[in-house]
Amino acid sequence: MDKIRIGIVGYGNLGRGTELAIRQNPDMELACVFTRRDPASLKILTEGVPVYSMNDIADHKGDADVLILCGGSATDLPEQGPKLAEMFCTVDSFDTHAKIPQYFEAVDSSAKKGGNVSIISVGWDPGMFSVARLYGSCILPHGNTYTFWGKGVSQGHSDAIRRVEGVVDARQYTIPVEAAVEAVRSGADPELTTRQKHTRECFVVVKEGADKAKIESEIKNMPNYFADYDTTVHFISQEELDRDHSGIPHGGFVIRSGKTGECGETNHIVEYSLKLGSNPEFTSSILVAYARAAYRMHKEGQSGAKTVFDVAPAYLSVKSGAEIRAEML
Amino acid sequence: MDKIRIGIVGYGNLGRGTELAIRQNPDMELACVFTRRDPASLKILTEGVPVYSMNDIADHKGDADVLILCGGSATDLPEQGPKLAEMFCTVDSFDTHAKIPQYFEAVDSSAKKGGNVSIISVGWDPGMFSVARLYGSCILPHGNTYTFWGKGVSQGHSDAIRRVEGVVDARQYTIPVEAAVEAVRSGADPELTTRQKHTRECFVVVKEGADKAKIESEIKNMPNYFADYDTTVHFISQEELDRDHSGIPHGGFVIRSGKTGECGETNHIVEYSLKLGSNPEFTSSILVAYARAAYRMHKEGQSGAKTVFDVAPAYLSVKSGAEIRAEML
Repeated sequence: MDKIRIGIVGYGNLGRGTELAIRQNPDMELACVFTRRDPASLKILTEGVPVYSMNDIADHKGDADVLILCGGSATDLPEQGPKLAEMFCTVDSFDTHAKIPQYFEAVDSSAKKGGNVSIISVGWDPGMFSVARLYGSCILPHGNTYTFWGKGVSQGHSDAIRRVEGVVDARQYTIPVEAAVEAVRSGADPELTTRQKHTRECFVVVKEGADKAKIESEIKNMPNYFADYDTTVHFISQEELDRDHSGIPHGGFVIRSGKTGECGETNHIVEYSLKLGSNPEFTSSILVAYARAAYRMHKEGQSGAKTVFDVAPAYLSVKSGAEIRAEML
Repeated sequence: MDKIRIGIVGYGNLGRGTELAIRQNPDMELACVFTRRDPASLKILTEGVPVYSMNDIADHKGDADVLILCGGSATDLPEQGPKLAEMFCTVDSFDTHAKIPQYFEAVDSSAKKGGNVSIISVGWDPGMFSVARLYGSCILPHGNTYTFWGKGVSQGHSDAIRRVEGVVDARQYTIPVEAAVEAVRSGADPELTTRQKHTRECFVVVKEGADKAKIESEIKNMPNYFADYDTTVHFISQEELDRDHSGIPHGGFVIRSGKTGECGETNHIVEYSLKLGSNPEFTSSILVAYARAAYRMHKEGQSGAKTVFDVAPAYLSVKSGAEIRAEML
């Protein structure tokens, strides 16, 4: 069997996780890595795999069957996604929910032009959580869907704290409110405000002599990020931060609470939950599975942008249809 | 918009649940019901919908877009599935796991002959649990999958008890062993025997003067059904059974415990869980969502047998691709 040749674009946490995930899939191999840094400066884990400059990516059109785009959603993907979809089949984790429709259109038009399949917004949210929301709402049309995140590290919120004057380093945990979760699981269908669903806990390292009260107030009142939440701020040393908060765990759950029966008298609770030791390693494992799907859908002659909603589960498996029916159905 | 016309084959708990589920889906309508009983004797919930004899089903080929087959897997579906797939698009809940491959082949050949789409083994297990097993194993290839059932009523085990001499009525609950579930959720990847995973609790009504000790022993030692489990038997009155055990709740969970990282040092737990007020009402709600998928895949020109693995999630939704991308991704 010819292996599916994967190219990684961007070698940060997600790119490194993708490299590790490829090793767990016997039908795949890492073909090349593209970086915006000086390729000679980049040391990757896999021996003998070439590292190229992003500037030269067009010269390597035939070198990978699928590119996994490991850049960020703020600036990298909006530019790279549409550009690369014309040259390669791609998978990415574009996660700016509000901008997904316009990103989809841009990638779709490029992918169709190039005759490629590009699966966008793959990961766990958007991604597996989206699938859970869709299945839940289709199976139980009369009901409510709740998404909780955490306990886990929010990279975006940690970065926001780091931008506060006087802050040296920070780590922010998003934590679901247990009482809210229990109310949802009971089938009570509560209406929950942002504040009632999650709390935010911050571990912050400050410069010597910094005004801690001012920093705490600035964090807690930061619009969009913290103002709508009950936020706790702990000031700790850099040593404590490095020792106790170096991991990137995350998780969360999607709950569909639905009613059936003649008068909606029967309750059902469907819950999809994740407890992740490493957010980027889990996300990249999902990206790799969807790279297999992109490869197969392209082989079948499909093209254009897709999301997890458009991918039949069978495309993700290394096994044949007959095998998965016999072993997993 | 033309509504999708659904025909129900078999009007027991599942058929009645299907009738109720159709009402929750504005793009569908109940077109007709087929029964093996005398049609005149059958009173259904929906006014003005014709009830026909199963014997005349070939005369009604154009009356429904999709048939939902609500018979049992032991004798009804092996005969009806392949026969009806040649005449109609169908959805069924065939759940004899070991016989799925041969059932798939039989339905596939008929459905292709008739140019129809037939989605088999739809429900929660097989069905949504199968999807959870497949997603979990594709995303985390290095890991273990665990399926637990309950707490819930097993119809098959209740029936088996009723066949014991001296038994008037019975209800059997399958209960997951909490310690086993917790071990799996901790990421410990335990190897679990049948006995370690579930217990069985039986509520039994006996004839006056029956030998309870003999009945209890006969139940507990019944091969396949109870011998491999720790089983508890409670003798109660018919009044108590009717009062406390008339519902058909069920549920369970699929847990994927997987490792990532350079040496498998990172743990991840993915869990899909169900708490169902009514097993047949939930199962029929799933059947109805997949009837929409069968209808659409058929409209696209597809044919043959499919399973939940072959159906992209988007096919299940009444909403358009653009809508679900904007609202649920």
